[in-house]
Amino acid sequence: MSPLPPNGLSRLSLNQETIKQWSLPELAEGCAKAGVPGVGLWRAPVQEYGVERAARLMRDAGLTVTSLCRGGFLTGVGAADRAAALADNRRAVDEAAALGTATLVLVSGGLPPGSRDLHAARERVADALAELAPYAAERGVRLAIEPLHPMFASDRCVVSTLSQALDLAERFPADRVGVVVDTYHLWWDDRVADGIARAGERIAAFQLADWITPLPAGVLLGRGQLGDGTVDFRRFHALVDAAGYTGPIEVEIFNEALWSRDGTEVLAEVADRYITHVLPS
Amino acid sequence: MSPLPPNGLSRLSLNQETIKQWSLPELAEGCAKAGVPGVGLWRAPVQEYGVERAARLMRDAGLTVTSLCRGGFLTGVGAADRAAALADNRRAVDEAAALGTATLVLVSGGLPPGSRDLHAARERVADALAELAPYAAERGVRLAIEPLHPMFASDRCVVSTLSQALDLAERFPADRVGVVVDTYHLWWDDRVADGIARAGERIAAFQLADWITPLPAGVLLGRGQLGDGTVDFRRFHALVDAAGYTGPIEVEIFNEALWSRDGTEVLAEVADRYITHVLPS
Repeated sequence: MSPLPPNGLSRLSLNQETIKQWSLPELAEGCAKAGVPGVGLWRAPVQEYGVERAARLMRDAGLTVTSLCRGGFLTGVGAADRAAALADNRRAVDEAAALGTATLVLVSGGLPPGSRDLHAARERVADALAELAPYAAERGVRLAIEPLHPMFASDRCVVSTLSQALDLAERFPADRVGVVVDTYHLWWDDRVADGIARAGERIAAFQLADWITPLPAGVLLGRGQLGDGTVDFRRFHALVDAAGYTGPIEVEIFNEALWSRDGTEVLAEVADRYITHVLPS
Repeated sequence: MSPLPPNGLSRLSLNQETIKQWSLPELAEGCAKAGVPGVGLWRAPVQEYGVERAARLMRDAGLTVTSLCRGGFLTGVGAADRAAALADNRRAVDEAAALGTATLVLVSGGLPPGSRDLHAARERVADALAELAPYAAERGVRLAIEPLHPMFASDRCVVSTLSQALDLAERFPADRVGVVVDTYHLWWDDRVADGIARAGERIAAFQLADWITPLPAGVLLGRGQLGDGTVDFRRFHALVDAAGYTGPIEVEIFNEALWSRDGTEVLAEVADRYITHVLPS
């Protein structure tokens, strides 16, 4: 294990999608060199590299895997769809456990083709959580429901607010099902302070990206570097602090401009912005 | 005045932006021929044609102007910005009165450059409403706060939910400040049924567009023709009915594909979709 960095970055985690141009070895080396102690990983690159091998790589670099993205997509209707989704989520749990992270981020899934019933879709998410949570708990993994911005409600995630995520999570013990507080998805909501206070020990991850406009076509890759947009990160930091959250603070930005730059330079910028815009002044 | 159409369209209003390719005379003729009794107008084309002249045109065609879009943009900080916005909104009120509509739709405005304070911006909207509402009431015009989808919160409208709109509107008498229920902006919100019930007589307009994906760049022109997306229009219709709303039902779709087609054909399609997807079955 590396000692904790003395540079104010002790809680910082880099979600690998922020510097997607890096391979896993580049990620491990880059974060270790920059004194960034945590990484958030994604299933596809980890599977490609080998789960055990990726776990060893991060461990050897002294890095903590703070979350695995992502399970979920639990809104399908048919028995076959449902069984396939549950099986895939069990694999995601196994991968999280192998990587040594206790947090599996869940993106719940959108509306099935032809459906207009958000409520029923959310209930199917609850049903799936009931099946998955005990399996995950046995492996030391907590399911973390991530509310996504309402612009993703139809095609990606029917859980749009922290309040909705908590309505689902609270049906289960707090150590089994938590929630993700991601500034990009929640910044606009005037109820988010109440939601964070309500979440308390259910906060399983705290993720950061800034909100910038204009949004690009498809809107997925429109996230902003910290400080470039309208999110008040210090306020969010204070809110999760007040709710008792002491875990990693993960920067997860999907932005093609960042992907086209030198990864080391991007990470230095992320660390600098984190100190300037996120840490208490 | 034309008699009420016997075709199920008695509450239908066409917002002119849905068929932006039509001039005002084409709009008047097209709606009258199709048996669509209402039109929602926009300030720029009305100003270009002449306000009194547009009022006469619609009256002579037997059409009711159901709303004027739009006032608002009330979130500026400086004294000059603020005075200019108030003056422009007073002109919008005058135009609404001249057109014979009691409903001026307000898009509140986004965050000023460099600001991250949504709460303060919403309070500036409230301050402006306090100045504008008496002026509007004297002219028989009600200010209608339109909550816009949260994806517009930074650059267009800091009022993102019906609940937020009502928090603002309820500081004023119901006959002076109302709200707009637009399915496109509100469909994702699990609290919308409560909001509509709470709104009651404050519902100043009921507007329809469907939610479709993928969203185009800039996201403004991504609205769907009724029935093409994920909005449950019958449910919304039942909710506003139950809240006591008996006014016009206005179709407002911004979609470049509709703008490239023959207007008469688009209006026939709107009427057909309205009967199929909106009216009780």
